[in-house]
Amino acid sequence: MPTPATDIDLATAAELGQQLRVDSIRSSTSAGSGHPTSSMSAADLMAVLVSRHLRYDWDNPDDPGNDHLIFSKGHASPLYYSMLKAAGAIEDDELLTFRKLGSRLEGHPTPVLPWVDVATGSLGQGLPDGVGVALAGKYLDELPYRVWVLCGDSEMAEGSMWEAFDKASHYKLANLIAIVDVNRLGQRGPTDLGWDLDAYRRRTEAFGARVFEVDGHDLAAIDQAMAEAGDLSGERPAVILARTLKGRGASEVEDREDWHGKPLPPDMAERAIVELGGERHLIVRGPAPAEGQPRRSVNGHAEVKLPAYDRGQKVATRKAYGEALAALGARPDIVAMDGEVSNSTYANLFAQAHPDRFFEMYIAEQQMVAAAVGVGVRGYRPFASTFAAFFTRAYDFIRMAAISRASICLSGSHAGVEIGADGPSQMALEDLAMMRAVHGSTVLYPGDATSATALVEAMADLDGISYMRTTRGAYPVLYEAGESFPVGGSKVLRSADDDQVTLIGAGVTLHACLAAADQLRDEGISARVIDLYSVKPADTATLSAAAAATGGRLVVAEDHHPEGGIGSAVVDALTGAGRAELSVAHLAVREMPGSGTTAELLAESGIDADAIATAARGLLA
Amino acid sequence: MPTPATDIDLATAAELGQQLRVDSIRSSTSAGSGHPTSSMSAADLMAVLVSRHLRYDWDNPDDPGNDHLIFSKGHASPLYYSMLKAAGAIEDDELLTFRKLGSRLEGHPTPVLPWVDVATGSLGQGLPDGVGVALAGKYLDELPYRVWVLCGDSEMAEGSMWEAFDKASHYKLANLIAIVDVNRLGQRGPTDLGWDLDAYRRRTEAFGARVFEVDGHDLAAIDQAMAEAGDLSGERPAVILARTLKGRGASEVEDREDWHGKPLPPDMAERAIVELGGERHLIVRGPAPAEGQPRRSVNGHAEVKLPAYDRGQKVATRKAYGEALAALGARPDIVAMDGEVSNSTYANLFAQAHPDRFFEMYIAEQQMVAAAVGVGVRGYRPFASTFAAFFTRAYDFIRMAAISRASICLSGSHAGVEIGADGPSQMALEDLAMMRAVHGSTVLYPGDATSATALVEAMADLDGISYMRTTRGAYPVLYEAGESFPVGGSKVLRSADDDQVTLIGAGVTLHACLAAADQLRDEGISARVIDLYSVKPADTATLSAAAAATGGRLVVAEDHHPEGGIGSAVVDALTGAGRAELSVAHLAVREMPGSGTTAELLAESGIDADAIATAARGLLA
Repeated sequence: MPTPATDIDLATAAELGQQLRVDSIRSSTSAGSGHPTSSMSAADLMAVLVSRHLRYDWDNPDDPGNDHLIFSKGHASPLYYSMLKAAGAIEDDELLTFRKLGSRLEGHPTPVLPWVDVATGSLGQGLPDGVGVALAGKYLDELPYRVWVLCGDSEMAEGSMWEAFDKASHYKLANLIAIVDVNRLGQRGPTDLGWDLDAYRRRTEAFGARVFEVDGHDLAAIDQAMAEAGDLSGERPAVILARTLKGRGASEVEDREDWHGKPLPPDMAERAIVELGGERHLIVRGPAPAEGQPRRSVNGHAEVKLPAYDRGQKVATRKAYGEALAALGARPDIVAMDGEVSNSTYANLFAQAHPDRFFEMYIAEQQMVAAAVGVGVRGYRPFASTFAAFFTRAYDFIRMAAISRASICLSGSHAGVEIGADGPSQMALEDLAMMRAVHGSTVLYPGDATSATALVEAMADLDGISYMRTTRGAYPVLYEAGESFPVGGSKVLRSADDDQVTLIGAGVTLHACLAAADQLRDEGISARVIDLYSVKPADTATLSAAAAATGGRLVVAEDHHPEGGIGSAVVDALTGAGRAELSVAHLAVREMPGSGTTAELLAESGIDADAIATAARGLLA
Repeated sequence: MPTPATDIDLATAAELGQQLRVDSIRSSTSAGSGHPTSSMSAADLMAVLVSRHLRYDWDNPDDPGNDHLIFSKGHASPLYYSMLKAAGAIEDDELLTFRKLGSRLEGHPTPVLPWVDVATGSLGQGLPDGVGVALAGKYLDELPYRVWVLCGDSEMAEGSMWEAFDKASHYKLANLIAIVDVNRLGQRGPTDLGWDLDAYRRRTEAFGARVFEVDGHDLAAIDQAMAEAGDLSGERPAVILARTLKGRGASEVEDREDWHGKPLPPDMAERAIVELGGERHLIVRGPAPAEGQPRRSVNGHAEVKLPAYDRGQKVATRKAYGEALAALGARPDIVAMDGEVSNSTYANLFAQAHPDRFFEMYIAEQQMVAAAVGVGVRGYRPFASTFAAFFTRAYDFIRMAAISRASICLSGSHAGVEIGADGPSQMALEDLAMMRAVHGSTVLYPGDATSATALVEAMADLDGISYMRTTRGAYPVLYEAGESFPVGGSKVLRSADDDQVTLIGAGVTLHACLAAADQLRDEGISARVIDLYSVKPADTATLSAAAAATGGRLVVAEDHHPEGGIGSAVVDALTGAGRAELSVAHLAVREMPGSGTTAELLAESGIDADAIATAARGLLA
């Protein structure tokens, strides 16, 4: 690699902008797909940023003083990868592997590259993720790095962008700079607001930002705006609104419709590259990272003293969640956030114990999950909580968090018809299906306070997306304090040699299974009872043994719609383990519930003890 | 019922406001749960609205000239139900059934009540739903009704609210009036912006609204604001920002924290009712609905000539979707919308054919689904499309649409690793799990253009949420034009008496199953092949017969994560049908994909023809 140039002047930055355009064309034409025109509009912005403002050590992407750069418009990946080449982080050969099988240069950036913080490509997520990184910078690391986020104008239509501006302003994140590439053309034609930069200015100012309007191809103007926007002395996030031309610099595509997401055919690419002045191979280095170390350690494991409960004591698992989380806060890497319901999820116990590591995200579940991902970028372990039903609001963010290889812990309270009178809008009845389908996820559903606390502690060290479903009501503690609950395990709570049927439940239905087993025992029927607290991964060995012992007769009861929840977890595990001979009675919430008491709704849904006992008798008839 | 009073003066409206407060307390105290204080803050607003501005015939909730009233802050249900009593729509006895099992007065309003348009209770959805109703009013019905939406201040933190303001402004919806009850207190404490009405003003004005600030307990001010806000002559939506006191009128709870979502205990309720002047039983009627009939019929079924394809012709199912939808547009009730990707989903074919019934929703999937629900309120049949992956953004809205008893048709294109180079952010790999778990949903996944067109037509008459997954690439047409594809059915494409194994696929994997069957046949293995185009409901009879005929040996291949998709649909169906003896090889996308060609990624994920044939051999080994 040639010695990188430093102290780049604007003339060189202009050359760099042309290089980024040429390389965006070369990589996408080589791939036969991709978004060159969306890259070219932002090339001058990124040339100035990378050469004169982004404080970054490309050889040490983990340097804590590094600025962060997030491409919220992830489809401009050719531009991003061209920047990596310009920084000397990748070679030209690798640039031309763009979008090919096995390449690190995927269609949209993902953290398989060490310089990428978060996966993008679902619009409207990079800025909310950036809010999370900026929260970490200001409140956790207490380091003077900045978070630069390149946004598209189309994505300003996503509500999540306004959740991000709102929270950036609320938390006074002067370290967050959104650069909006207003090229006025979306995928299928003009954007809603076109080049009406004043409209964007009014909106972003109203949400509390410092706003800079620039011609996105005037390098001096960009330079000045970035210098001011990157100043950390104020208390407001910055927005640079840049008027640009899509496909800038290649006259056959510049500012034209129908060129979104299309590579230039080879002949056209050749002409465009000539027009742009040909290939260049500048290597540039911008300013060095800020010096310093994060104020908090993200590695220091402290001694955690989990709460202990007496067997038989009635404790809601949501309360056990809060108490365990507050205890876990002895670890300096643990951070919590909540969607304005912390007095219901009991995250408020953490907030009271560790106020400097708790972030109130108000009723903005998308931003809450993005903030979790963002603080995770800096090595913290986030726990985010709200009502289980409202994680559906953030499903795209959870899905993308998995692609970001994020390790975040989510806790949803008030699940299922068990909540009673509030009605179906507040009843999570899809959450287990939704969370199980996330790649690499862990799904936990403790039936008592002892297991809940143990599993909260386990979550803090799991890779990937982990989810705990907690329950509104208080139910008896089933296990001795200190008992172990491995992820992927289960507990057999009733078992005998003459078991005729297996009853499987988790959470509230576990208690119904136990009561049903008592009913059945009085009738001379011996039932095995399994606590499937780990819904994913499920304990295939124990389930298979139970199925074998009880003639394949299983009753599965769950406070969830029939699809994708505990019933699926059981049947998937058993049919995945080889030849299966099964007689399954699957009790789930099959009709739309209304309001009522917990007992009424469990009965009406056919998932209470009586229904379980009846189903068991049916299998034995 | 006493004769309702009409021509209500403000003094009577003030009395009505007190009645609404008293009844909000009575109903929630009787229920032992609910949100009286959130109701009391908005009681004066609603008293003035229902008595002097809401044009509504309470005896005819289907009158096309009726104004619409949506409680976006659905937890203020005691207030809403108290209004129903005040309008003479329900009796006092029914009011006191609030939140009890079997009552129509659920914890949050749902359309089991004929006056309720949409279910609310997940915040930030009523206003987007209202945008849909207002779109119908202005562009489809062309009737001068207004859509009044009572919003909470807490829910202004949801990005979806800003998607709604953006689209209301874009579509010039002067018929939409958001009334924001700024009582400054959320569930767990003060809201982000408190009583900073100026901040709300700046934001909503920047998003294009006419804004009226009022003291929400000054009836004359409210009255004047509503008179002006309800004026349809302009082109901007209206926002009434009302400064209010939570719990207004009951000094023990007024403007106090820790009284969210709590009924007053009986003794405190008694004192509050005395303080509010005691029980009243006013019956009032406001202005009459506007006269007129919708410009379009929502009942007129026209003759639909579906596109026809030749067997063997390569056609993408997403294109067949667009062509079928354009043809279906002969029916005047069909409306389409898209999330700014209509040139990819092929919804643009409908837009070209029926521009007056197509709504571009830009990149705002939550608002898109809400708009579908909203136009459905007025009897239209909406089809909403985007990339399948991006419906995850709207999952909470889809879940709530089911609770709204909405009938909406969703189409997600570009599903699975089949899309190739764009990478995982664009690959729906959770959509089938997500959509199957929705109550009452239908999930369709056609493998060719002929079945796609037939199923698009079928969707238009299905109740509830229907979802079609379409494919990016073009694959051979398998079926003769005109063949029938009942929802809940399947097709057996290969079958012989000596079948040893069953191969089950849908969409792209169906073609892989066919190719695998050809491979196996050459080796002397006879394989049955099933096209499971109807994933939910699944064709249990055909699956059971195939399992019985092939010794329970099944290979299921799906371009989806292993949880909750086609594999689950098959196993759930078979284990739900009685004793099942199964040997299942379940091929699904188990590792995180990157970029590559379609063939490379199908192979890498182990869901191509070779993998299916190998799995079949394994079951027979």
